[in-house]
Amino acid sequence: MTATVTSELYAQVQHFYARQMQALDDGRLEEYAGTFTKDGSFQHSPGVPAAVGRDAILAELRSFLKKYEDDPTQRRHYFNQIVLEPGEDGGIRSTVYALIVRVRPGEKPDIWPSTVVHDVIDVTDGEILLRSRTVSYDQLV
Amino acid sequence: MTATVTSELYAQVQHFYARQMQALDDGRLEEYAGTFTKDGSFQHSPGVPAAVGRDAILAELRSFLKKYEDDPTQRRHYFNQIVLEPGEDGGIRSTVYALIVRVRPGEKPDIWPSTVVHDVIDVTDGEILLRSRTVSYDQLV
Amino acid sequence: MTATVTSELYAQVQHFYARQMQALDDGRLEEYAGTFTKDGSFQHSPGVPAAVGRDAILAELRSFLKKYEDDPTQRRHYFNQIVLEPGEDGGIRSTVYALIVRVRPGEKPDIWPSTVVHDVIDVTDGEILLRSRTVSYDQLV
Repeated sequence: MTATVTSELYAQVQHFYARQMQALDDGRLEEYAGTFTKDGSFQHSPGVPAAVGRDAILAELRSFLKKYEDDPTQRRHYFNQIVLEPGEDGGIRSTVYALIVRVRPGEKPDIWPSTVVHDVIDVTDGEILLRSRTVSYDQLV
Repeated sequence: MTATVTSELYAQVQHFYARQMQALDDGRLEEYAGTFTKDGSFQHSPGVPAAVGRDAILAELRSFLKKYEDDPTQRRHYFNQIVLEPGEDGGIRSTVYALIVRVRPGEKPDIWPSTVVHDVIDVTDGEILLRSRTVSYDQLV
Repeated sequence: MTATVTSELYAQVQHFYARQMQALDDGRLEEYAGTFTKDGSFQHSPGVPAAVGRDAILAELRSFLKKYEDDPTQRRHYFNQIVLEPGEDGGIRSTVYALIVRVRPGEKPDIWPSTVVHDVIDVTDGEILLRSRTVSYDQLV
């Protein structure tokens, strides 16, 4: 069965992304991990192996954020320009721009990095979860 | 009666924000003040008392913008990542990222500040107005 | 017949912009030109004459991008704060903020320029095309 992309689904996906990324930016990492299916996979950076399953995703996020412990930074993820395409397996492929605004004490906010997020979205009984997320970076300097 | 958050309402709120912030950025301050309920409250910066009522909101905006008379700046408010939650009092709580892009003659556009906006939205007969708006800043340097 | 602005149309326009600007940013220029009506007009910069018709739009884009051949840059167009108004001629006037994020090797992403896009949108049998696009810049330094 192929999911179709209605205006209703489009708004639902926007709302899903808003909740998901506010959770991540607020440090509610369990909530973020819970937006994936049980066997969902998450690759946040090129060259890093994907974490599979909510526990692994949570562990990967904690490990990733630990590097920034001495660098207090408020990140704000802006997801925008969402393109949704029905996939062959009933999932929805989502290609979306993600701009990360980084706010550090004493500095002006800057953009780092500029990325494109590639998701496969599962819609079951009106509930949205991610089967997979892969993030590509516009540059790797 | 509890308002529910439908996809239709979600799109309406996006459209409301788009109109409201274009009005503000274009200097149509009366129109901005008119997006609040008659007894609506608006606190645009931490530590500043909230202005209550449309006249007070208009006066506060004029006073705030007067400080920038000698600093011609085009601001563009980007509202994004909107999360809507039904409140107990029939209102809708909205938590939304707001990125302010600042354009000054001779300078490159920059981001200042990065904020999160906390609104309580009133929906009556399909019309959206703000009962209250409180803006938090990601940094206060 | 006056088109009305429903929540469904609002989401459709968002999706249209997302596809359109991903096409442009990915260099799929024919696809971008195909988002205009056959006699659609496109003025991407103040002072430049509008290109009229898909072939002319495509030629103008190729010419414009040729200037940047020696300056490899990934652009990401963020369209946001979309205001839609029914026009007298059955079209929809769209006024939308467009933030262009520019990513160059070895540099931090920056915003250049900050613009406002003025479109007239044609909706025929559920298909969205542009009758015209005019881009205004917040500064011209």
